[in-house]
Amino acid sequence: MDKRLEFIFRRRSIRKYRPEPVTRKDIRALLEAGMAAPSASNLQPWHFMVITDRSKLRQLSEVHPYGKMLAEAGLAIAVCGDPQVSERYWDQDGAAATENILLACEALDLGAVWLGCHPRPERKAAIRKVLGIPDSIEILSLLSIGHPGEKKPARTQYDGTRIHREEW
Amino acid sequence: MDKRLEFIFRRRSIRKYRPEPVTRKDIRALLEAGMAAPSASNLQPWHFMVITDRSKLRQLSEVHPYGKMLAEAGLAIAVCGDPQVSERYWDQDGAAATENILLACEALDLGAVWLGCHPRPERKAAIRKVLGIPDSIEILSLLSIGHPGEKKPARTQYDGTRIHREEW
Repeated sequence: MDKRLEFIFRRRSIRKYRPEPVTRKDIRALLEAGMAAPSASNLQPWHFMVITDRSKLRQLSEVHPYGKMLAEAGLAIAVCGDPQVSERYWDQDGAAATENILLACEALDLGAVWLGCHPRPERKAAIRKVLGIPDSIEILSLLSIGHPGEKKPARTQYDGTRIHREEW
Repeated sequence: MDKRLEFIFRRRSIRKYRPEPVTRKDIRALLEAGMAAPSASNLQPWHFMVITDRSKLRQLSEVHPYGKMLAEAGLAIAVCGDPQVSERYWDQDGAAATENILLACEALDLGAVWLGCHPRPERKAAIRKVLGIPDSIEILSLLSIGHPGEKKPARTQYDGTRIHREEW
């Protein structure tokens, strides 16, 4: 692993959290990171829902099949997209914004995990209901975030069989 | 902009390059960064095509409508996905890997730009032909990479109207 890229290799999926809240300053920084992502034609088709209310976090933990940890998380961010702004690319742009936020969490000593929503209609419908998201807005991902209560080693998952040089 | 996240804010789309080649060491580091991305159920449905051959780079510059700069780039990476491995998430996973590589470029003092391919069939067909990519493999993005020949300031694109707290 190239030492210059530790900020990438250190990002791991963190599902256990300590109880301290995530500060307003850190929440603002995470949102700045998300909106610094590239987007097709720089259309920035994204919206971000910020959830710190414990009862809402609990509700989310109950409606996402892999979201139990949300009940203990200090923060959730739902990364949404507006297909009317960018029909073809809202999902890729949202994924880039999601990855930015995950890397930002690591840099701020927070832990986070990406919970997939799109393209599963049942997950999106349930989250839409809890958060009051309009029907015209898509829900790409749900991020569970908090002060890490577990540690995992840095890693790449480099696999030479996935690399093709000059021609497939 | 939160100073702790400059590695994110400094990433900008760089389309002009100096002629020095990208080193083997840096290419390896970029691929390590791509494969360190999260993926749904950790299926890692990605493949990476590495192109440094000048004549291939020129061909790519001619077939992508926004890819002129590829003719002068030291390196292109095509981020591909295998829908047979992850039908629902290969594109989001590929977008996260793409964003990792872009941030890694910035950290290695390289410049890069994300050229969209999926879901445009005409772009994918043309690139598939140049690179010999099998029909079963999807082409998410093409990255044009080199030693930067232009400078752009760090920035977030923070926009408070895109943020929704607790409820939409």
